[in-house]
Amino acid sequence: MSGVENGGKNRQVILARRPAERLPSQDDFRVIDAELAPLGENEVMVKTEWLSIEPYMRAGMNGRILQSIQDEGDRWSGSRLGWIAACIQQGVEIGEVMQGTTVGSVVQSRNPRFREGDTVLGYGGWQQYHVDDGRRLRVLKTDGIPARAALGVLGVPGMTAYAGMKDIGYPAAGQTVVVSAALGAVGSVAAQIALIAGARTVGIASGQEKCRYLVEQLGLDSAVDRKSPDFPDALRAACPNGIDLYVENGGSSTFQAAFPLLNERARVQILGMISGYSRVNSTVDMGPDNREALQGSDIALAVQMKRLTMKGTYWFERIELEDEFVDDVTTWIEAGSFQYREHVVENVENAPQALIDVLSGRNLGKMLVRV
Amino acid sequence: MSGVENGGKNRQVILARRPAERLPSQDDFRVIDAELAPLGENEVMVKTEWLSIEPYMRAGMNGRILQSIQDEGDRWSGSRLGWIAACIQQGVEIGEVMQGTTVGSVVQSRNPRFREGDTVLGYGGWQQYHVDDGRRLRVLKTDGIPARAALGVLGVPGMTAYAGMKDIGYPAAGQTVVVSAALGAVGSVAAQIALIAGARTVGIASGQEKCRYLVEQLGLDSAVDRKSPDFPDALRAACPNGIDLYVENGGSSTFQAAFPLLNERARVQILGMISGYSRVNSTVDMGPDNREALQGSDIALAVQMKRLTMKGTYWFERIELEDEFVDDVTTWIEAGSFQYREHVVENVENAPQALIDVLSGRNLGKMLVRV
Repeated sequence: MSGVENGGKNRQVILARRPAERLPSQDDFRVIDAELAPLGENEVMVKTEWLSIEPYMRAGMNGRILQSIQDEGDRWSGSRLGWIAACIQQGVEIGEVMQGTTVGSVVQSRNPRFREGDTVLGYGGWQQYHVDDGRRLRVLKTDGIPARAALGVLGVPGMTAYAGMKDIGYPAAGQTVVVSAALGAVGSVAAQIALIAGARTVGIASGQEKCRYLVEQLGLDSAVDRKSPDFPDALRAACPNGIDLYVENGGSSTFQAAFPLLNERARVQILGMISGYSRVNSTVDMGPDNREALQGSDIALAVQMKRLTMKGTYWFERIELEDEFVDDVTTWIEAGSFQYREHVVENVENAPQALIDVLSGRNLGKMLVRV
Repeated sequence: MSGVENGGKNRQVILARRPAERLPSQDDFRVIDAELAPLGENEVMVKTEWLSIEPYMRAGMNGRILQSIQDEGDRWSGSRLGWIAACIQQGVEIGEVMQGTTVGSVVQSRNPRFREGDTVLGYGGWQQYHVDDGRRLRVLKTDGIPARAALGVLGVPGMTAYAGMKDIGYPAAGQTVVVSAALGAVGSVAAQIALIAGARTVGIASGQEKCRYLVEQLGLDSAVDRKSPDFPDALRAACPNGIDLYVENGGSSTFQAAFPLLNERARVQILGMISGYSRVNSTVDMGPDNREALQGSDIALAVQMKRLTMKGTYWFERIELEDEFVDDVTTWIEAGSFQYREHVVENVENAPQALIDVLSGRNLGKMLVRV
């Protein structure tokens, strides 16, 4: 088969079992070499070059992620990113190829809209090749910012941050904005939007190396290591005027440290909850030993007394912002006022470890697998 | 002194100590007969007829309630209710008269804006007489709806519900709205606004008697007894299509039962958190025995995955709605489509028990003391 390497085989990573514990392990996946079938009418074969690794994939390993998202029909199919929402919601069945957004090149096409050599954004999953009828492919420009940015800073993670900052975020000069997982694909965009808005911007990251990068390279006002033993105190010290906007991309420990520091009328924009994804579709025992200092009614009381707004926003619900998002971020990158960092892992069979690393906060920027 | 009864004495209820435990007791208060001083220039003496008992008073017994509310200056002083916000925020010091909103009649006036016999809304507190320089008094009409409605359905409690329903609430036909403490001064207004909007409206109240009243008299679609042993299951059964808007006026147990039933994109409007008020300015031990099933990160995860909006709203932040609120509620009452129920206790010395009863959910409607 022309353009196909690996002896005509397609290396795939499939879901072998649903993780019983919080963090997936290598045994939850299996790497196989599958046969490639000839293309049917209208079909396109794409050789994957880049695979995006994102925390939501952990939730998908437990099954369907979203019970109901509104079908946006034409509005989604006509957009650059919106159609991805319908892919993400399904989750993964045991024995199926792990799913994910990809950038690749067309190697064969029986579809008039795609030519061999086209660079396309797709939902190809954790495998070397994927076949699509074209509905889940978008041709990408290859000049200027590299095409793989459509998986990160110009893709769903960037759009997640952008939608959140436009939804209830609205950072402004004179305010203190705290962003968790601030070197992650979502957090780094959120933090830089806050900086551009003139807010005092504090990042939370795991480890001193990331914290140095946030301050020295991204220009954040301060960064706090969530793995440091005095993390809650250090966060408090970094926010002498409290927190006006907290952007959560991480999980329980960061949320609990930031929550008591919120000012009256502060906003809490929850864009990700990595530590919670293992609990999707599961019944993790939250018995006494697993309980936290922050209780449900603490939150309700604080929301009332401080008149907080807490909101979860999915990027696809604000898809009308897509063009503005792409324009803004492209302009900022080209002007040099906006940076993005990638953490690249080689070969599809290393995708499981890449996901485990993302869930453990070991990635130094947007996690990509070069397939 | 003309117009003054009780032998020229002023019976007062003062704060004797800050409650150490969650529920105040009689010993936290002291009833005294104080001397009445002659009026100074511009001063007005008001004989209190009605005293409003409200859950926030429990928080005030622990000291200052709000650290900072924005001074709204003219906007508040010119409004019917707004100025009350600045009174409420102070809380009560030990040895001071317990505070609260009152309706009374002017018995002496050295202020040209007030005449003897005027019926006035004031912040007179738990005493028979109070003296004011006029800035914290508003003359009330005495035709039509009784003046004491300015303490309840047409006062701060009603405005609290109205502001919340206009803030993120927006009940609509086809939606399910659940209101906790639905027979309380705030909840009954919120529930009836939901009914008028055409929503399926479910009330939570303590005891079968209240539940019957909610369905038979107010016309709610269903009512659930929070003291019943199967309360969470009963609430679930009353909401076969989940919850689109949850209005919290009560506390921890209702919040925990309602939270898992929220639909995607549901709103949680927190207008009161009675069970939490004892924790204001206190350091109640939330050790293992006091912990709840619902954890802080459960809430954060659900807010993200379901894209919930949770918000606390204070009525005075939406004071621009005041005229619309008074017009709407007056129209509804006069049209017979809106009811309010009062729970009247006689004599100021019974105000402590009235507050304890409100905090315990034993009031059958808006709690008033006829002083």
